[in-house]
Amino acid sequence: MKVTISPRGSMSLLSQLEIERLQQSSDKQLYRLFRNCCLAVLNAGSKTDSSEEIFNKYEDFDVNVVKSERGIQLELINPPAEAFVDGKLIIGMQELVEAVLRDILFTGETYNSQTLDSADTHTLTHVVFDILRNAQIVQPNLDPNVIVCWGGHSINEVEYKYTKEVGYQMGLRDLNICTGCGPGAMKGPMKGATIGHAKQRNPNGRYLGFTEPGIIAAEPPNPIVNELVILPDIEKRLEAFIRCGHGIVVFPGGVGTAEELLYLLGILMHPENERQVLPVVLTGPASSAAYFDAIDDFIVATLGEAARELYTIIIDDPIAVAKAMKKGVQEVKEYRRETGDSYCFNWTLHIEEPFQRPFIPTHENVRGLSLHRDQEPQLLASALRRAFSSIVAGNVKDEGIRAIRKYGPFEIHGERDMMRKLDVLLRAFVEQGRMKLPGTVYHPCYRVITD
Amino acid sequence: MKVTISPRGSMSLLSQLEIERLQQSSDKQLYRLFRNCCLAVLNAGSKTDSSEEIFNKYEDFDVNVVKSERGIQLELINPPAEAFVDGKLIIGMQELVEAVLRDILFTGETYNSQTLDSADTHTLTHVVFDILRNAQIVQPNLDPNVIVCWGGHSINEVEYKYTKEVGYQMGLRDLNICTGCGPGAMKGPMKGATIGHAKQRNPNGRYLGFTEPGIIAAEPPNPIVNELVILPDIEKRLEAFIRCGHGIVVFPGGVGTAEELLYLLGILMHPENERQVLPVVLTGPASSAAYFDAIDDFIVATLGEAARELYTIIIDDPIAVAKAMKKGVQEVKEYRRETGDSYCFNWTLHIEEPFQRPFIPTHENVRGLSLHRDQEPQLLASALRRAFSSIVAGNVKDEGIRAIRKYGPFEIHGERDMMRKLDVLLRAFVEQGRMKLPGTVYHPCYRVITD
Amino acid sequence: MKVTISPRGSMSLLSQLEIERLQQSSDKQLYRLFRNCCLAVLNAGSKTDSSEEIFNKYEDFDVNVVKSERGIQLELINPPAEAFVDGKLIIGMQELVEAVLRDILFTGETYNSQTLDSADTHTLTHVVFDILRNAQIVQPNLDPNVIVCWGGHSINEVEYKYTKEVGYQMGLRDLNICTGCGPGAMKGPMKGATIGHAKQRNPNGRYLGFTEPGIIAAEPPNPIVNELVILPDIEKRLEAFIRCGHGIVVFPGGVGTAEELLYLLGILMHPENERQVLPVVLTGPASSAAYFDAIDDFIVATLGEAARELYTIIIDDPIAVAKAMKKGVQEVKEYRRETGDSYCFNWTLHIEEPFQRPFIPTHENVRGLSLHRDQEPQLLASALRRAFSSIVAGNVKDEGIRAIRKYGPFEIHGERDMMRKLDVLLRAFVEQGRMKLPGTVYHPCYRVITD
Amino acid sequence: MKVTISPRGSMSLLSQLEIERLQQSSDKQLYRLFRNCCLAVLNAGSKTDSSEEIFNKYEDFDVNVVKSERGIQLELINPPAEAFVDGKLIIGMQELVEAVLRDILFTGETYNSQTLDSADTHTLTHVVFDILRNAQIVQPNLDPNVIVCWGGHSINEVEYKYTKEVGYQMGLRDLNICTGCGPGAMKGPMKGATIGHAKQRNPNGRYLGFTEPGIIAAEPPNPIVNELVILPDIEKRLEAFIRCGHGIVVFPGGVGTAEELLYLLGILMHPENERQVLPVVLTGPASSAAYFDAIDDFIVATLGEAARELYTIIIDDPIAVAKAMKKGVQEVKEYRRETGDSYCFNWTLHIEEPFQRPFIPTHENVRGLSLHRDQEPQLLASALRRAFSSIVAGNVKDEGIRAIRKYGPFEIHGERDMMRKLDVLLRAFVEQGRMKLPGTVYHPCYRVITD
Repeated sequence: MKVTISPRGSMSLLSQLEIERLQQSSDKQLYRLFRNCCLAVLNAGSKTDSSEEIFNKYEDFDVNVVKSERGIQLELINPPAEAFVDGKLIIGMQELVEAVLRDILFTGETYNSQTLDSADTHTLTHVVFDILRNAQIVQPNLDPNVIVCWGGHSINEVEYKYTKEVGYQMGLRDLNICTGCGPGAMKGPMKGATIGHAKQRNPNGRYLGFTEPGIIAAEPPNPIVNELVILPDIEKRLEAFIRCGHGIVVFPGGVGTAEELLYLLGILMHPENERQVLPVVLTGPASSAAYFDAIDDFIVATLGEAARELYTIIIDDPIAVAKAMKKGVQEVKEYRRETGDSYCFNWTLHIEEPFQRPFIPTHENVRGLSLHRDQEPQLLASALRRAFSSIVAGNVKDEGIRAIRKYGPFEIHGERDMMRKLDVLLRAFVEQGRMKLPGTVYHPCYRVITD
Repeated sequence: MKVTISPRGSMSLLSQLEIERLQQSSDKQLYRLFRNCCLAVLNAGSKTDSSEEIFNKYEDFDVNVVKSERGIQLELINPPAEAFVDGKLIIGMQELVEAVLRDILFTGETYNSQTLDSADTHTLTHVVFDILRNAQIVQPNLDPNVIVCWGGHSINEVEYKYTKEVGYQMGLRDLNICTGCGPGAMKGPMKGATIGHAKQRNPNGRYLGFTEPGIIAAEPPNPIVNELVILPDIEKRLEAFIRCGHGIVVFPGGVGTAEELLYLLGILMHPENERQVLPVVLTGPASSAAYFDAIDDFIVATLGEAARELYTIIIDDPIAVAKAMKKGVQEVKEYRRETGDSYCFNWTLHIEEPFQRPFIPTHENVRGLSLHRDQEPQLLASALRRAFSSIVAGNVKDEGIRAIRKYGPFEIHGERDMMRKLDVLLRAFVEQGRMKLPGTVYHPCYRVITD
Repeated sequence: MKVTISPRGSMSLLSQLEIERLQQSSDKQLYRLFRNCCLAVLNAGSKTDSSEEIFNKYEDFDVNVVKSERGIQLELINPPAEAFVDGKLIIGMQELVEAVLRDILFTGETYNSQTLDSADTHTLTHVVFDILRNAQIVQPNLDPNVIVCWGGHSINEVEYKYTKEVGYQMGLRDLNICTGCGPGAMKGPMKGATIGHAKQRNPNGRYLGFTEPGIIAAEPPNPIVNELVILPDIEKRLEAFIRCGHGIVVFPGGVGTAEELLYLLGILMHPENERQVLPVVLTGPASSAAYFDAIDDFIVATLGEAARELYTIIIDDPIAVAKAMKKGVQEVKEYRRETGDSYCFNWTLHIEEPFQRPFIPTHENVRGLSLHRDQEPQLLASALRRAFSSIVAGNVKDEGIRAIRKYGPFEIHGERDMMRKLDVLLRAFVEQGRMKLPGTVYHPCYRVITD
Repeated sequence: MKVTISPRGSMSLLSQLEIERLQQSSDKQLYRLFRNCCLAVLNAGSKTDSSEEIFNKYEDFDVNVVKSERGIQLELINPPAEAFVDGKLIIGMQELVEAVLRDILFTGETYNSQTLDSADTHTLTHVVFDILRNAQIVQPNLDPNVIVCWGGHSINEVEYKYTKEVGYQMGLRDLNICTGCGPGAMKGPMKGATIGHAKQRNPNGRYLGFTEPGIIAAEPPNPIVNELVILPDIEKRLEAFIRCGHGIVVFPGGVGTAEELLYLLGILMHPENERQVLPVVLTGPASSAAYFDAIDDFIVATLGEAARELYTIIIDDPIAVAKAMKKGVQEVKEYRRETGDSYCFNWTLHIEEPFQRPFIPTHENVRGLSLHRDQEPQLLASALRRAFSSIVAGNVKDEGIRAIRKYGPFEIHGERDMMRKLDVLLRAFVEQGRMKLPGTVYHPCYRVITD
């Protein structure tokens, strides 16, 4: 099966040089990345969260860049059938493919890996901004209204309905949704907001999806996402979230959600960010109250009481969450105006290099994490963030899965008390089915060394 | 509680004469109609289908037309709270109110009841067209793609999901949905189509709602409806459906659906309409197969085998339904081009006066219906249509309910065999809960005289 | 030569009834009116201002309304060749034809002549509003910015350049232009404003043309007019000007301009309009200073000193005129807000019936005008307005020209002093070539009885 | 005088790094370039064509880039007063300033001078494309309709009116205009096309201006230009013209026009371009017939008879020119479709490096030009092109004027016969006032060595 699609918009305008780079022969690595991300987005709606499984299933999938009279065309060889209606690619899918083409090409063209490796914090932020701008994610003349929603890709039905309801209430208040793409808590708020926006006849509803090549196959963008951007790695993705978001809602989730929350707290706890305005709400249905107690405990136990002041926990009250966010973005707007900062990108937020520099979750790197309270809390937060990040990789990312298969589970060492608390938390995640989509038996990819 | 809203668009432009007419003092009847329809649309989402109940509940609701510097404003006194978010009327609701204002005013201004009573068939069709044009329902330069969906307001969960899936598959194929407003089969296809349109990034999805003052309170427009029009009576509403629709899908339903189907068949069976192209599909989930058998039997038994050729029954196959409609509208387009007829309004369809002239379901009129096979099948269809129409009125319309309460059930006389079949069919509707929304005990408003 | 065009927009949506009415056979008078107005707008750019000449030249012109699959089509038989490029009607021309179709049909459908003859002042204003609304001339949500420009269709080159410069300066300030259509002072300000709007990248520049069937052939809309409306008679056209305009600029002109100015002053002098805010500027190049002295003298001599306070004369200063209008419309906005009046239509302006009721310039009616100072100044203004109106008719309107040919010049009687002043003024108009386009010898169609 | 403006669109989105680069202190050269180009565009409409004069007059002009909450702002210090209306910068001017900001920044960021110096022909074309794409000059989904108009900035009134008429006729046929910016033949066609587009109600008229830092002050974009792009040098600008244009019209002009024509012919004569489709018309009013005879003679004498077949001369017939272009772009479209080339950028046109590599017109370089017939005609065309280019620089470019003042006129050597012909041609340009704007005495900046 071969289907030819014509990218539209600026993506139909590639120079001969750029087309050559994307063509299979000339730049294998860039091509491979492009091909895998295409496959991932075409596979949206699949029922697995294993990148490896998807890549194996569609081994014979291929994509060719072909020149034509009105720009370029993409030839899809053996694409997933679900992406098509009566032989035609669904337009929303096509937009996602175009976003892949745009981001992979732009990032590859503009920043080679040496440049990035040697970049200072200033430049790394510029890179994040540049990619977002090229994707038209940052836009002038918009009031602050982007609510980042974090939470698990594998949540139960009650939690899922709750995320939809929160999204609905936010949509009714003309707030937009930004998530990490994928199912569960990444999809629910968007779905709810769609209905809220429709009722308010808001045709400009934004459903922002921030992803990265490593995770996109496991958590492909749901079809509501109308602005997708692929950041090069999880660190730039996280920076994108907190510089673009004007408010943050955390739903129940697993290790990915924990990673995000620790990243956020680690940054907000930095003394230079003391005056920053960023509303953060942790919320879930009544049945999830215990979950948030556990998270809250773990945070206080590791980062201290101060961390707790950076967020509010609201249980079982979608309207209250939506109102808090609506009020919060007003305060963000005032703060930005006072400080002269941009509405669309939080330039004044201070982010230290450890939060920006990519962490490669090798067994060695995981073993070397410095997990004890004898350091600045933001440094501990950074280290804990990396520990959770490794588990995410081991659970769903292609490379992580292979590494675990080869070398066995990651070993997480550290201060004994903290390790015990961590172990309890992770066990709870496993029991609550938050590690992997239901229907599979979960084999932990980590071992917490508690003695 | 008093809320002031400013109508936008052309509706904000009323002349002093028009404002006076709408103001309470000057034209009581027009005002009353306007007030009731406003209340009905503001009440969308309520859980009752009794107009009377709604009007009683909101007895102290009122609406005033007030002049202001930029056109007019509406003052809503004690409106239903659900229509508001943080004290502001939901825009979608406001659009519905504006549609009410537009249609009530336009029809009242342009056609007084004497004009309508004495109008010939030619003029009656002009009236329907004029109202639709004024509401911008008929538009030039659009390809045929309006699928009229009929079906019950009270259907079971399996059926409801099925209507959504059919709507989704039609939305994916860029077909638009037109229904009679209200819950159940009038809402499901729209909801499904919304998602289909969103995936195809089709921002022009049309969700047309055709209603009438008598039914609007019992079946208020669901909030997806983005083009609402209020026709003066059920006959004009039915004419609007079949002149605007390019395809018709009939889901399981009760007496209203039966009325619609008989109206349609009665017209299509007329010899002058022999060459008309209009795809008609009856469809439902597997569990509804028996329902369609019953309908099919009843039709053949009353209108004859020829009627059966005017529709196709498709069970449990949403994709097949969507494909049939997609193919059908292509054929409609070709037919219209050949005959030189408009794409947006089927002028060449021949409709006899009995189908156009309003039928007032008084006890006397119902008793006088001529229900026997000793006449042209289209005349029988017309009479049967009126019988079902009476039951709809007795079930949910304000006036009908009052009449039943006062004089007891309608008595439906006719050829004995046919009466028996009718009785069986109606009993099935009752048993299947198709007469009224669940949660109420149904007391039949009719009595079929079977001996 | 036969050309078929497809009206677009709502005009492509006519009902069968409406098409029949427009078709030649069924309603001769409406058809004739429609045909003549079509011819007039297709003839834009011709070098004559005699309606009769145009109608004679294109005697074999015809227009047929034909049904088609996507609405209606117009067949133009022997249309003026200048309206076409490579066999296709220029779109701007097509829009004008569509406006003719819309207005002739709407007015004909909605108001028959008896209705209008018996209408009271309230209703007459409603008619003006209704026609303007139907033509989407009055629009909600626009700030006051419509500047009505009056002045001669036959002006000299220096004056013409001046009107362009004034238009340019107003365009730079985002003011819109409304004139009576035609060449000279009706075209110059629009042409200038076009460039001003273009430099300000204002894509919404409005170039409103208000005309009437009697004058449209003599002064066809110039091609810049992008919103044309055809009012039924000069009185409704004048009312439209002053209820829609937010400021008025009077350039040098002849009897038509004098008619407009007297109409305006007559209304503004009414005690009930004392508080009205409406900036009026009389302006021209340095070489026209004497012209305005003469006008000013005539006004003071007839209407008294009070009239003089209602306008400002600005000589040779386009920027000052534009600034005065910019400032003026701000004051209009404030006044309308305070009084709660609409921004787009001045409802509170009081207009007496003599200014609304059509005046038919027969020889008898002209002879009967009451031209003496022994009455309220607004009544005198009204009578003088009618005197000038008659001369316009005798100069360029089809019916007027015929009447003069048959019965000789109009005889204008009145108070001797005033007649002398009037005679001086009219002689000056003749000498300055303001009566007819250059290239013709002017034979006065009137006789002022000065003894 | 200090005015602050807020760039809109994507230009309001600069990263901190980019803002720093543009700020005066950090990158003097980039800043200087930006400042000068800003001044040039703000000076549009000035009456001089000497860059030097402008830069001297506004020595105290400055522009600062300032951060603000919604992107960046520009502070203009002592800008030319003509760019403002009532203290506000005219929006069209602001767009030009934004274009300057965009292009200077983009080119500076993306391509440093070393990269460009060492680039191969493939890459140089990519650079041209990349700049045009970034400026949204190349766009997908547009049919070929860009007509490049070349001709003198200093032409007489008859010629100017003729260029307007040609532009008008092209505008009526929905063709768009691309010129090198500036007055005369660069402005006339745009002005004419504006009216043609307006009559056709074409809101998407494109008035493309391609300029370069060296010439922008002498020939600032006229205010009609709504898409401005600043290419780094004349060679890239010329490549942009012929890769973007779908037809070329050459009006009377001086050395700049001669440069453009020789560039074009030199490329079209290359054997690899034999099958290229590109309509070229040389045209002027009747009074310019002799001018084109002279040009035609010079071309045949230098490049041979074959060159003559690449263009058509049309005298005094604007409609014929417009029809030829309309027909030509249809053929271009077919050719591009057949060859699979882009509609918006002619990738298949073969351009040799000598036409791409910047030529710096120093006295030494000019002296070294190889001007004789003993070589491939396209190489001779290239050398002649450079000779004319030098005279352009000596006439109006800042650096060129300084060099001439310091070292005296350029000396142009070559084959004697050819030098004589060249001398005759240049003398004619001088006599016809084509070298500089009227009102100045022209002192030749060159000396043709004819013996």
